[in-house]
Amino acid sequence: MATSSLLLLLISSCIISALLPAASASKTRHFKWEVGYIYASPDCNEKILMGINGQFPGPTIRAKAGDTIHVELKNTLHTEGVVIHWHGIRQFGTPWADGTASISQCAIDPEETFVYRFRVEKAGTYFYHGHYGMQRAAGLYGSLIVDAADGEEEPFRYDGEFNLLLSDWYHQSIYDQMVGLSSNPLRWIGEPQTLLINGRGQYNCSLAAHPVEGSNACRPTSKDCAPVVLRVLPNKTYRLRIASTTSLSSLNLAIGNHKMVVVEADGNHVEPFTVGDIDIYSGESYSVLVTTDQNPSSNYWLSVGVRGRKPKTSPALAIVNYRPNSPSKLPESGPPMAPEWNDYNHSKSFSYRILARRGAPKPPQSADRRIVLLNTQNKIDGYTKWSINNVSLALPPTPYLGSMRYRLKNAFDAGMPPENFPPSYDVMRPPPNPNSTQSSNAYVIRLNSTVDVILQNANALAVNVSEIHPWHLHGHEFWVVGYGDGRFGEKEVARFNLKNPPLRNTVVIFPYGWTAIRFVADNPGVWAFHCHIEPHLHMGMGVIFAEGVEHVGKIPREALTCGMTAKMVMDKHRP
Amino acid sequence: MATSSLLLLLISSCIISALLPAASASKTRHFKWEVGYIYASPDCNEKILMGINGQFPGPTIRAKAGDTIHVELKNTLHTEGVVIHWHGIRQFGTPWADGTASISQCAIDPEETFVYRFRVEKAGTYFYHGHYGMQRAAGLYGSLIVDAADGEEEPFRYDGEFNLLLSDWYHQSIYDQMVGLSSNPLRWIGEPQTLLINGRGQYNCSLAAHPVEGSNACRPTSKDCAPVVLRVLPNKTYRLRIASTTSLSSLNLAIGNHKMVVVEADGNHVEPFTVGDIDIYSGESYSVLVTTDQNPSSNYWLSVGVRGRKPKTSPALAIVNYRPNSPSKLPESGPPMAPEWNDYNHSKSFSYRILARRGAPKPPQSADRRIVLLNTQNKIDGYTKWSINNVSLALPPTPYLGSMRYRLKNAFDAGMPPENFPPSYDVMRPPPNPNSTQSSNAYVIRLNSTVDVILQNANALAVNVSEIHPWHLHGHEFWVVGYGDGRFGEKEVARFNLKNPPLRNTVVIFPYGWTAIRFVADNPGVWAFHCHIEPHLHMGMGVIFAEGVEHVGKIPREALTCGMTAKMVMDKHRP
Repeated sequence: MATSSLLLLLISSCIISALLPAASASKTRHFKWEVGYIYASPDCNEKILMGINGQFPGPTIRAKAGDTIHVELKNTLHTEGVVIHWHGIRQFGTPWADGTASISQCAIDPEETFVYRFRVEKAGTYFYHGHYGMQRAAGLYGSLIVDAADGEEEPFRYDGEFNLLLSDWYHQSIYDQMVGLSSNPLRWIGEPQTLLINGRGQYNCSLAAHPVEGSNACRPTSKDCAPVVLRVLPNKTYRLRIASTTSLSSLNLAIGNHKMVVVEADGNHVEPFTVGDIDIYSGESYSVLVTTDQNPSSNYWLSVGVRGRKPKTSPALAIVNYRPNSPSKLPESGPPMAPEWNDYNHSKSFSYRILARRGAPKPPQSADRRIVLLNTQNKIDGYTKWSINNVSLALPPTPYLGSMRYRLKNAFDAGMPPENFPPSYDVMRPPPNPNSTQSSNAYVIRLNSTVDVILQNANALAVNVSEIHPWHLHGHEFWVVGYGDGRFGEKEVARFNLKNPPLRNTVVIFPYGWTAIRFVADNPGVWAFHCHIEPHLHMGMGVIFAEGVEHVGKIPREALTCGMTAKMVMDKHRP
Repeated sequence: MATSSLLLLLISSCIISALLPAASASKTRHFKWEVGYIYASPDCNEKILMGINGQFPGPTIRAKAGDTIHVELKNTLHTEGVVIHWHGIRQFGTPWADGTASISQCAIDPEETFVYRFRVEKAGTYFYHGHYGMQRAAGLYGSLIVDAADGEEEPFRYDGEFNLLLSDWYHQSIYDQMVGLSSNPLRWIGEPQTLLINGRGQYNCSLAAHPVEGSNACRPTSKDCAPVVLRVLPNKTYRLRIASTTSLSSLNLAIGNHKMVVVEADGNHVEPFTVGDIDIYSGESYSVLVTTDQNPSSNYWLSVGVRGRKPKTSPALAIVNYRPNSPSKLPESGPPMAPEWNDYNHSKSFSYRILARRGAPKPPQSADRRIVLLNTQNKIDGYTKWSINNVSLALPPTPYLGSMRYRLKNAFDAGMPPENFPPSYDVMRPPPNPNSTQSSNAYVIRLNSTVDVILQNANALAVNVSEIHPWHLHGHEFWVVGYGDGRFGEKEVARFNLKNPPLRNTVVIFPYGWTAIRFVADNPGVWAFHCHIEPHLHMGMGVIFAEGVEHVGKIPREALTCGMTAKMVMDKHRP
């Protein structure tokens, strides 16, 4: 019953049509957006969430490499500031448009408008999202797709494409979540209630577990939560763009009976490889090619499940609808099952296979500096925090970009955070002394130098617990030159992959493992590097990189009208 | 059972001790406050709310007339601005300290500190509360009690005093409430779940309806919701300070078997009169004297119930505990019952009895200007609003005080709002054309002129509905010179009470009635005059009065660092 009503509703659901980019000249693309709360039922439970122009997820931006994006963003929230981060866009020359509160700009006040104007350099699958408090988890996100410039071609062919923006969804408000995370004792926000595909899911739908029986909970009660349908023709090849903007969850995606060929990661071409499922962490994006070479009289499930935490959240489902079948035709096989949540070998074997496509730019063969970042869970005055080299990031009220550019004193904590952690530290055990410190200090990096960062995972506060952390770097891409288990050692450097390491903007560290990245600090500005899990960042899991700030151009006034940058000007010059 | 557990818990509850002011010299009183969300269970249901220094309600300020209050207010909310309004304090010479977002100052950004420094001129019962969005309804309020200056005496005597700050409480977040009120169609937030006395109540406690049976819901589950106890000695006289900071509800307060002598209203002495119960509207405060002349072997209920709307909320209860009885001893009589919710004659007879105490300052005998303000419920593009002379107030992003002081163009809508409404308008019927307009325009008033304002009530959108609206004026007190039913007519002017009208800062208009006030515009600044019902103000029910802004002194920079005042300085002078 419930299954059939799910399927019947598929007909009326939003059907994503296959698109191919149309040819046109490089240009400036203008958008006028208003951010505000709206009512929506993403998982068939109505809740207020942050939408853009009344839509959730926000409108998809589609542009071509070389285009300029011009978004006039008006804040129509009642009492809250807002910013939007353009995830994966380098913002070369426009560091004030990176959309990170306390870092690149002052939050936009209610009823005020800020113009984000920046160039999209490279074709790929990107997205955007709120980067203030936990506003991303309130629903403030959308897709940003960049096609190849006119006359350019991506090195793979497909007949159509679909865009799948994955997220997770809580019934608790983000205010409740933030207070819980900031409480002593910690009130852990727990697992999300629902996984969403393009902002749609079905709360507590046991269809995945019991594909035939179904349950009443699987009956979509609003068009907001009708399942996504991918309408395909047999014997074609489709590009699936997949990005994850989850607050917490690491995900696995698979399509019943179908293989996937991975061709893009975070806007970079990778050497194609074939898999039955992909792992995707918050902040990552992939393109996979899927050939519709299965029995065309059937439809198929696309399933998205949880990885890395014992799943309490049902998988999200979409239908791959082989035309001319009815989209409401029940697939003959049940949804593909995700690998065991803690099968990290499966996850690692996927990550390790991601390598740069032949001809991709190679990293410098040596680094000028190495920063080793130990990831630990800690306590500060009884509050649970995440720390990096025993420093938990506390963002300052005055954004770094302005305070550094104008050399304001005391806008953030002086001194450089540690470059490493003590040799005696045992990453396999809980911290012997869990006490940590908070700071807003920043790593200052010489412009155009090459930096290696070793992300070192460790045991959390509880014994035998080490979590997945996907780290995302703003303003740059980096080469992933190595992964390993246990503690990173000097001998690993010789084993770095400098031949075909993938370029990315987000990379995971596995439990008790390390990941090594290399990047060139060639983008004047101040940039966050942080765990993309929203609660973890809220709890301090990030660092700040500043490079060549003296070369930053004229920062728009709107990015500076708060804190000490406003004070600086107003104290001197007020009439 | 439940009743006894309620009473047993009284012993461990917060017992307000009787206080008399101690003698000391006039001085500056310093406070360091942090506003942030905390967990609390004001009605035994846990929720996040806005507290100050971890307390709800916020700390009580106690000062003497002539003192200076100095509050360093730090905003520790994560993404929201905040301000605090000092309700009933004139802010003479310090209009930037009035704590009204969009009017007197820029909202304080997260992690920033604003100093409220102002003088309390006159002894009385005041309070403070948030004045941005609906933050008052999130719990951001507390008491401000001003005692007579050293060597001065108030014209009544008492042996002890109690302070009762009344409020109402919703289980929905204020974000949900604001979105509902801002939606088309309107989603009305409905009645509050609970009434609170000093931040404590018991949700769904039927004790008032069934005082003997009780119910499980009446069992306080947290010390946050233990009932308030007033510990008294027999044959003494106590001052009860009563203030209402409700979001929606009009209230009635009575004490079983006891009479009350009203002696103060909104910080002004009134000619004493005796009543069995008082009506109190949001924004008002009273002092009443209660003599403990009843059978001392019993305790008594103090009960607070809803007026003016068909009550769906149980009365709030406190215990008047005659010592040495145990505070858990059940009163012999049930809680006093409030008058019928729609017995407006009862309400009017109370309001009409409030007159200035002999010797109080008299109003000027004539006014220089009369502004008639018609209160109507309207529609704007399908959205439900409240309008004044067909203008629904839309606050601008740049606070008026700064934009007027520095004569910035286009910071708010030009032109003066209407001084009156069409003679043909029938206040007894719904608006014939419900469409209204939004504006941020302001009434500019000549400094030191005397102004009459006639608040004219009318039928709302639905037939046979006219609501109570308590109007609160910032920066001034006004004389209440007349009340009447139906439409105000010119002939009423001759009947104004110019002999002993009470001075107040808040006054009610009754359904289908009018209220006339007179004030002297002697306080350079920009001042809100608005319905104190939080949802009504959110829906535009207010006006702006500006007077002598050119005489305003140096506005602190922190009040100006937003919108066009920030732009003005920064565009000219940025390095």
